[in-house]
Amino acid sequence: MDSILLAIAAGAVGLVAAALLVWRVMRQPSGNEAVREIGALIQEGSAAFLRKEYSILAVFVVIMFAILAVFIDYNILGNATIERLGAGGAIESDGPWTALAYLAGAVGSGLAGFIGMSIAVRGNTRTATAAQHGLNKALQVAFSTGAVMGLTVVGIGIIGVSALWLIFENPNVIAGFGFGASSIALFARVGGGIYTKAADVGADLVGKVEAGLEEDDPRNPAVIADNVGDNVGDVAGMGADLFESYVGSIIATISLAFLALSAGSSYSLDEPRAVLPLVIAGIGIIASILGLFLVRTGDKADMGKLLWSLRYGIFSAGALSLVGTAIYINSSPGLEFKLFWVVVTGIVVGQVIGTSTEWFTSYEGLKIGKFEFNPVKWIAQQAQTGHPSTIIAGLSIGLYSTVIPALAIAAGIFVANELAGLYGIGLAAVGMLSTLGITLATDAFGPVADNAGGIAEQAHLDPEVRKRTDALDALGNTTAATGKGFAIGSAVLTALALLVAYTLVTGVTTLDLLEPKVLIGTIIGGLLPFLFSGLTMQAVGTAAGEMIEEVRRQFREIPGLREGLPGVKPDAARAVAISTQGALKAMIVPGLIAIVAPIAIGALMGAEALGGMLAGSIVSGFLLAIFMANAGGAWDNAKKYVELGNFGGKGSDTHAAAVTGDTVGDPFKDTSGPAINILLKLMAIVSLIFGPLFI
Amino acid sequence: MDSILLAIAAGAVGLVAAALLVWRVMRQPSGNEAVREIGALIQEGSAAFLRKEYSILAVFVVIMFAILAVFIDYNILGNATIERLGAGGAIESDGPWTALAYLAGAVGSGLAGFIGMSIAVRGNTRTATAAQHGLNKALQVAFSTGAVMGLTVVGIGIIGVSALWLIFENPNVIAGFGFGASSIALFARVGGGIYTKAADVGADLVGKVEAGLEEDDPRNPAVIADNVGDNVGDVAGMGADLFESYVGSIIATISLAFLALSAGSSYSLDEPRAVLPLVIAGIGIIASILGLFLVRTGDKADMGKLLWSLRYGIFSAGALSLVGTAIYINSSPGLEFKLFWVVVTGIVVGQVIGTSTEWFTSYEGLKIGKFEFNPVKWIAQQAQTGHPSTIIAGLSIGLYSTVIPALAIAAGIFVANELAGLYGIGLAAVGMLSTLGITLATDAFGPVADNAGGIAEQAHLDPEVRKRTDALDALGNTTAATGKGFAIGSAVLTALALLVAYTLVTGVTTLDLLEPKVLIGTIIGGLLPFLFSGLTMQAVGTAAGEMIEEVRRQFREIPGLREGLPGVKPDAARAVAISTQGALKAMIVPGLIAIVAPIAIGALMGAEALGGMLAGSIVSGFLLAIFMANAGGAWDNAKKYVELGNFGGKGSDTHAAAVTGDTVGDPFKDTSGPAINILLKLMAIVSLIFGPLFI
Repeated sequence: MDSILLAIAAGAVGLVAAALLVWRVMRQPSGNEAVREIGALIQEGSAAFLRKEYSILAVFVVIMFAILAVFIDYNILGNATIERLGAGGAIESDGPWTALAYLAGAVGSGLAGFIGMSIAVRGNTRTATAAQHGLNKALQVAFSTGAVMGLTVVGIGIIGVSALWLIFENPNVIAGFGFGASSIALFARVGGGIYTKAADVGADLVGKVEAGLEEDDPRNPAVIADNVGDNVGDVAGMGADLFESYVGSIIATISLAFLALSAGSSYSLDEPRAVLPLVIAGIGIIASILGLFLVRTGDKADMGKLLWSLRYGIFSAGALSLVGTAIYINSSPGLEFKLFWVVVTGIVVGQVIGTSTEWFTSYEGLKIGKFEFNPVKWIAQQAQTGHPSTIIAGLSIGLYSTVIPALAIAAGIFVANELAGLYGIGLAAVGMLSTLGITLATDAFGPVADNAGGIAEQAHLDPEVRKRTDALDALGNTTAATGKGFAIGSAVLTALALLVAYTLVTGVTTLDLLEPKVLIGTIIGGLLPFLFSGLTMQAVGTAAGEMIEEVRRQFREIPGLREGLPGVKPDAARAVAISTQGALKAMIVPGLIAIVAPIAIGALMGAEALGGMLAGSIVSGFLLAIFMANAGGAWDNAKKYVELGNFGGKGSDTHAAAVTGDTVGDPFKDTSGPAINILLKLMAIVSLIFGPLFI
Repeated sequence: MDSILLAIAAGAVGLVAAALLVWRVMRQPSGNEAVREIGALIQEGSAAFLRKEYSILAVFVVIMFAILAVFIDYNILGNATIERLGAGGAIESDGPWTALAYLAGAVGSGLAGFIGMSIAVRGNTRTATAAQHGLNKALQVAFSTGAVMGLTVVGIGIIGVSALWLIFENPNVIAGFGFGASSIALFARVGGGIYTKAADVGADLVGKVEAGLEEDDPRNPAVIADNVGDNVGDVAGMGADLFESYVGSIIATISLAFLALSAGSSYSLDEPRAVLPLVIAGIGIIASILGLFLVRTGDKADMGKLLWSLRYGIFSAGALSLVGTAIYINSSPGLEFKLFWVVVTGIVVGQVIGTSTEWFTSYEGLKIGKFEFNPVKWIAQQAQTGHPSTIIAGLSIGLYSTVIPALAIAAGIFVANELAGLYGIGLAAVGMLSTLGITLATDAFGPVADNAGGIAEQAHLDPEVRKRTDALDALGNTTAATGKGFAIGSAVLTALALLVAYTLVTGVTTLDLLEPKVLIGTIIGGLLPFLFSGLTMQAVGTAAGEMIEEVRRQFREIPGLREGLPGVKPDAARAVAISTQGALKAMIVPGLIAIVAPIAIGALMGAEALGGMLAGSIVSGFLLAIFMANAGGAWDNAKKYVELGNFGGKGSDTHAAAVTGDTVGDPFKDTSGPAINILLKLMAIVSLIFGPLFI
């Protein structure tokens, strides 16, 4: 109880710190008129998209609210087991609490995305302007912008879960919160991901390859849409995504603090174990804020120093968080100290996956003595023999890059389970995400710097500015690799923990693959990530195709556009409209699949088949997500490696082939891949909530 | 016993029929000097590759023979349970029987590939020559050539399994036969697949796209390698592959005829159920031969009539086989008639998967009233917006084309299990493959016709000849779609049946996903097909890259080659050497993974984890295999659709993009995809044999 209040207080401190950072960012000069004008265009486009997206999602949320209230809270089907797991201290249907928690989760997720995006579209012009005065200055602005999102996500998240737990102490209710967060996150990731990649592909292929323009050239009609996309996809989408990961891991772990007293139907709550994830998260927030303070360098810092400074902040936050956790666990009579080692395990697994991501997707690769392993350079080299070779190379790298992450996760499950049983699987995920406040900041400043670069280009600022923002962007890519590792690792562990929680509420004691029902469920579950990513890829392909046609049309039909005659401007609004429509239309079906599939399987085939389905989706989805993320990242950097002047450099045939790889990789790594992570958790949480209906 | 002798007799009849067909093919004129010369080149190249491949595999087979003899037959680790399943009528280590059976399986598989290839390299020149006299004449020769392979595979297969079963009545011994067949099949598929695709990619990309030559232009240095590849990959590789599928399904089903008498350790053999798959296979051979007779048309038959004629043969064989099966089951006192419906279920599932493959990969697509679904045309349309769009489109189609097959398999498992328990899963696979004698013929005549076309082009025969062989090739692609459906469907069911058999021999009674061991096994199993296909894709990419460099070099350095000056010939031998080395070097690691992985997991983590691993590999591997096969097939036909003159036709930018898709699809559909099917079964059979060591 006291500990929970401390967790809420930590969340509040996080939000206050975020507010201070907002003030710090807004205080910066927002630049000359040209910069402000372009910034305003991006701001309007982003806000307009988010408004439309949220108005569609509002309808969905209202319908889902009603369904939850009727079938879960008021339990009109009269299913006797519905409050089973909550027996320890449950409220039996005296109000639409799950439905309300769902609403809170959905609003929280939307808010996290909205705040992150709102500050990002203001931070970008300010970063561009600050970059006129040096690299460090620009880093400070961009990083503060990212930190706002990081602290907002964790602040809202922990306050939401803690408050609900304090009031209801009912796992169904907090699961409702997680469901709200996950469902909005999925739509936001898919919608934002389709938006940004359709625009990106359109801008790159016609602008860079066909018309021979530089990145972000203001003559390119898709450039504004591309910049808007960075905000609605990479910022708002990512905010909603990580909000979901964060609360999901906490909720799953709390659910596993219920212990079966016997093989029968009665469960009791292990209170200290339930509170522990909240406390770890609270400690993590304070540690993150302290870490943020440490990210500062002298005015003349070079890239190496900046990277070191970022890493110093992250590692310090991680160390502080671990120390705090150790002290708390050690001083809590109800907790065994080995739980601390579970948290450590989670962090190690996340680090291993992150390091593997770096090997596979940076051009540093891996060197140990004479042994050299460099997938990115290999892809760039293969690009010399053409487009197909580039694609084959990237696909093969992506496929076998799943090895280390899969083995790391397997080892993590083994250790966590040995130390703390299945509860440990959830706790390891909480450990991974505990310092999300600062790691998300390092993830989110990349898109801000990217946008700042776009603005600098379009506002014709000194080329030195663009160089600095590019350097920041590259820096962001490096630190983001580790963040991705934690996101993927925590997603698998959280989904597994939710699966275990699901078996507790449904009373399913085994998921035996030798039972045809379970096996069939597993096959169908394995299928869903394939279907889902096929649909999202197709949506990007279709929208990008329309975008390409539109950009080609404008270059063809607007006289003087390609030549850059003064006063001739592209019709950016039409490009924005294409991305918007494509994204909003295409996000519905994949999103619904995630919600309908588990309910359908549960209703038709029962609780065991649904358990199998979840397991199947986790195994195939996790591998598919890593495959897509790493192939995409490797192609991206292979292109950059060529652009550095290798194998012919920019403008060569090799470069064209490398751009093809990067373009295919875009929806892989920024749309389908990350959305799969949410899909797995969303399906698991839907099952956790609706599971009792299928017994 | 009598029934088994009949099965052996049916196999003998199949081999005699094959011999007659060889005589029929060899009697055909082998063409003019130019044709014979090119044919001889292809023949030598193919034979040389097979010799090298088999000499490497011989070493492997000898080592594996020793391992099996020592650890399994003579059981030097002294594991008491090793003969457990065979308790019904087992011989306890009185000889190296499993090892010898392994040798027989390996030799049988090699022989099937060798005979198929030997007749194919002779049938191609004869088909080219026959095509001078009309479409039907050419079909007869090509189809007879394919039928030799079909009947050889089933003949050797059934005689091998039946004889071993008759002598030993020990499931370990026949599993050894399956192991031999599978391990050679995997190496042959991977080696042949890398060979053919490296050559194909090299020939297409430089020859067609860069140098602007037609397919199979004799100036292209990689053309001979490409033609050789058709024989070593598409013919010999496919022969070994289907030999493995055929015997694998029979062996798995026989193993499931052992019933646990109690929950304890004693098993008894249900003799009629053990013999049934052999009888069904025997009936299928006779039905196939009768079906082959029915494939004949008048001399002036058009394409529609030819297709009808082929389908008539296949369907008649299927119907005859079903009638025979129904009569046998009905007249056997030990068999319930519902087993007949299991066989029907298998055939229906195979048909559904085949039809789905056709929808996704032919330009007919699916039309029901106003509803039209045409993935191939959509890919071709997307190709208008460039290389990346083509790739994104194909990948998305491939990803969600997994839906129907996965649901069909799930439904098939459900029905088969309802009717006959887990035994039904194996029996359904046997049903699918019962008429392999004729379906393999329709699969195998495509590459023969393809080769004949290449020869016609290089020997400068009348262009009408090339048109006819192209028509035959297209016909083969259409009928092959169904064959693929049966191959994939039977692979999943066989692998699952082997998994069940594995649990019987190891006494594992549940594979509970809530057990961390099993879950970890499942994750690792899910990973293996990703690793495996990543490695095979990379091998193709690397070898193709070298091939491209070599072809470019020859065009650059051999004066007059590109211009086609008389007397200037490319250095085909070097291209052949590149493919050969690339294939032989790269087939080792993936092949070893398939054998080492299950043994390592079993030894380190125990029998339950290994069971989880098999299940995980089946779920993820099956989906990955369909994804790759269908994406590849769809790209292939999208390219052909453009080449028919759509969206700009040959030589347009759209065509270049479509060729990129096709080239990426080549290793997908012809190397990695089909090899995964074998991988799943090979790992399962390794587990079945070595499983008792891990208890």
